Amino acid sequence: MTAMSTVDGKTVRVALLGCGTVGAEVARLLTEQADELAARAGAPVELAGIAVRRPDKHPELPQHLLTNDAAALVESDVDVVVELIGGVDPVREWLLTALRKGKSVVTANKALLAEYSAELFEAADSSGADLYFEAAVAGAIPLLRPLRESLAGDRITKVMGIVNGTTNFILSAMDSTGAGYAETLDEASRLGYAEADPTADVDGYDAASKAAILASLAFHTRVTASDVHREGISNVSASDIAAAKALGRTVKLLSICERVEGEDGAESVSARVHPVMLPRTHPLANVGGAFNAVFVEADAAGSLMFYGQGAGGAPTASAVLGDLVAVARNRVLGGRGPRESAHAQLPVRPMGQTPTRYHVSLDVADKPGVLAQVAQVFAAHEVSIAAVRQRDRHDTASLVIVTHLAPDAALEATVEAIGKMDVVNEVVSVMRVEGEDS
Amino acid sequence: MTAMSTVDGKTVRVALLGCGTVGAEVARLLTEQADELAARAGAPVELAGIAVRRPDKHPELPQHLLTNDAAALVESDVDVVVELIGGVDPVREWLLTALRKGKSVVTANKALLAEYSAELFEAADSSGADLYFEAAVAGAIPLLRPLRESLAGDRITKVMGIVNGTTNFILSAMDSTGAGYAETLDEASRLGYAEADPTADVDGYDAASKAAILASLAFHTRVTASDVHREGISNVSASDIAAAKALGRTVKLLSICERVEGEDGAESVSARVHPVMLPRTHPLANVGGAFNAVFVEADAAGSLMFYGQGAGGAPTASAVLGDLVAVARNRVLGGRGPRESAHAQLPVRPMGQTPTRYHVSLDVADKPGVLAQVAQVFAAHEVSIAAVRQRDRHDTASLVIVTHLAPDAALEATVEAIGKMDVVNEVVSVMRVEGEDS
Repeated sequence: MTAMSTVDGKTVRVALLGCGTVGAEVARLLTEQADELAARAGAPVELAGIAVRRPDKHPELPQHLLTNDAAALVESDVDVVVELIGGVDPVREWLLTALRKGKSVVTANKALLAEYSAELFEAADSSGADLYFEAAVAGAIPLLRPLRESLAGDRITKVMGIVNGTTNFILSAMDSTGAGYAETLDEASRLGYAEADPTADVDGYDAASKAAILASLAFHTRVTASDVHREGISNVSASDIAAAKALGRTVKLLSICERVEGEDGAESVSARVHPVMLPRTHPLANVGGAFNAVFVEADAAGSLMFYGQGAGGAPTASAVLGDLVAVARNRVLGGRGPRESAHAQLPVRPMGQTPTRYHVSLDVADKPGVLAQVAQVFAAHEVSIAAVRQRDRHDTASLVIVTHLAPDAALEATVEAIGKMDVVNEVVSVMRVEGEDS
Repeated sequence: MTAMSTVDGKTVRVALLGCGTVGAEVARLLTEQADELAARAGAPVELAGIAVRRPDKHPELPQHLLTNDAAALVESDVDVVVELIGGVDPVREWLLTALRKGKSVVTANKALLAEYSAELFEAADSSGADLYFEAAVAGAIPLLRPLRESLAGDRITKVMGIVNGTTNFILSAMDSTGAGYAETLDEASRLGYAEADPTADVDGYDAASKAAILASLAFHTRVTASDVHREGISNVSASDIAAAKALGRTVKLLSICERVEGEDGAESVSARVHPVMLPRTHPLANVGGAFNAVFVEADAAGSLMFYGQGAGGAPTASAVLGDLVAVARNRVLGGRGPRESAHAQLPVRPMGQTPTRYHVSLDVADKPGVLAQVAQVFAAHEVSIAAVRQRDRHDTASLVIVTHLAPDAALEATVEAIGKMDVVNEVVSVMRVEGEDS
């Protein structure tokens, strides 16, 4: 029974780049749980240095480990680089250097991975180093390892989820209070759920980076953030939320990665981030506050869901440490983690050609023939209507239409044409629909 | 960009033992998706032989691959053995032989793993072979890999879930129809959701094997099926279900693996399978039919949930193929998967000393002082009451009590003593409670 506690490997020396909320938690756990981690990795895992911008600002950290020279730390005698700084430059060069020199990298840097993962994987491959990044998407939720490994024998058709806590917090709050977007964003900032500059979250950049990473892994295709169609939540109005509520639906910002088959049978990948109306009975509809949840559909596995905390120091540190143990274990046992899997290289489908469904809520004149006229515009754009609900008010009527799947460009053109009709007083709400039978 | 489609490894030859629902699906996917699997594994993955009891009964399979001599197939020139026969003997010997000879094993055999995983891991370790078994628990849901790898840097405190589809189908049906157990089991058999001999499912043996596997992985401790306290669902009555419903709760058969701290601060492991009352707002309460779902709580990661199909040919085959790709990739890249992790070796806590909470529903005499007398019995056993609800009927009253956490033996003794009281006409329902603040 010799395998029970084999800690006979050579010490794995770790460089930590960045020591904010997540980094501090990683440093703490590496020290406090040293024996446990060693038992799991098969060798001691030792913090060899911490690079921070201003070492004098970190009296709480072991002073002899601190440096402000990240490049030198990467070049020093370390085996693994854990990067928690974020952003593209100058981190990209440091990680490329580390990987080319055979040092494995564990990173939570979604922005970097969403643009440069091909280059990073190539550098890793040149030396046989590992590149792990579980913490880059959905924090503590084990999601990337299942996609990269557990489902490696299956054919994934869709990955759809809530991967940004800030926008989910805001939309959940708008849903429960009925308040508008600007007001709710202010409240979220006050409570610490939104950054001082919330652009990356509310405009969907963060979710788009994550969608790129998810689509790449799910479809064995290089998808970058710029390939992802991106719409944020700043245009989601109290009327949109109210319209959703009236129909037993709720609004969520989703990252959606889908395998789409064209008329010619050729496959392509759609990757997009936009607000979506979901039925309240949909499991993603009940994911509240800052939680994350991701649905995965695969041919053999069917539907899977992963749920948990998507951000925060400790949850993200959990994902980083899981990767760190894997990387250390690979060193001890002489193996390697999964490499880039981009053999399929499917084309990325433009948003206009991606099949979606729209919910359109109109305020129209209350007179005979209006529904026929509106329906005619849908038909002219070859958009098929799935459901209609008309409700009379005083001298106007509320008309709600949900379509079947149609190319997004056709749906957009339909809405534009309808907005110009004399009988249409106002387009109250337009939103894409997911999670219902089409 | 050389890593995109490297299929330069030596062909990985696979022996398939057993070709029922899951095996047939594995064989089909291995053939149909050969190119995809090769790209992901880095080498062609080839089905080298299929052992079935009666080759003549399988005209649908490639005849030249069939044999009824599993032992000889294992000894032949194969690199990986995929075992889908189930049961302990004679499979155990075949897999030990394979592992000792350096052939990696992928198995869905929960009964074998729940008793003999230490021996199997030791055999794997002696030759450096891999042992993977994602399909043994919760079918297609990537659960074991997250426990073994993603959470390797975290401290798991609880794993609790629905891991048996048959019992979940029966309890869901009893909840929605109000019918009794026997009647619902008949219906489940008729619909194919229960086996002709349903013992392994309804008496909790299947769930107990899975609890043993989960507890072993979560707590780095050897836990066997015989260590798991096991109660099935055959005693769950229509009254239990009705009592649960009246309180906004539902009944589920859960596998619960918990890290328990004793009064002396020493840690131990509780592993148990029994029916549980859950609030209807609990995420596990809404897992219906044959689906599986598992909650994991860890110090840093917080609460995680995994949801998906727990059985069936295609979903289980998805898990098997994911493991097969991992094993093949380890061969191609010269690495190894995780070994046994049993370094903690915590003691297993007897059920009587495990802290649980009871829901007790009584029919009592409707006269003064009854509640005081009943409460006195709880107090005498040092069981603290969390909530009481009394409702008068004609000359009797319904008394519902939910306790705080107490040692299970104290709770059991309390219920026994209460059942003997003159003022208690009937103990209508006794059930453990999870998922509520204690």
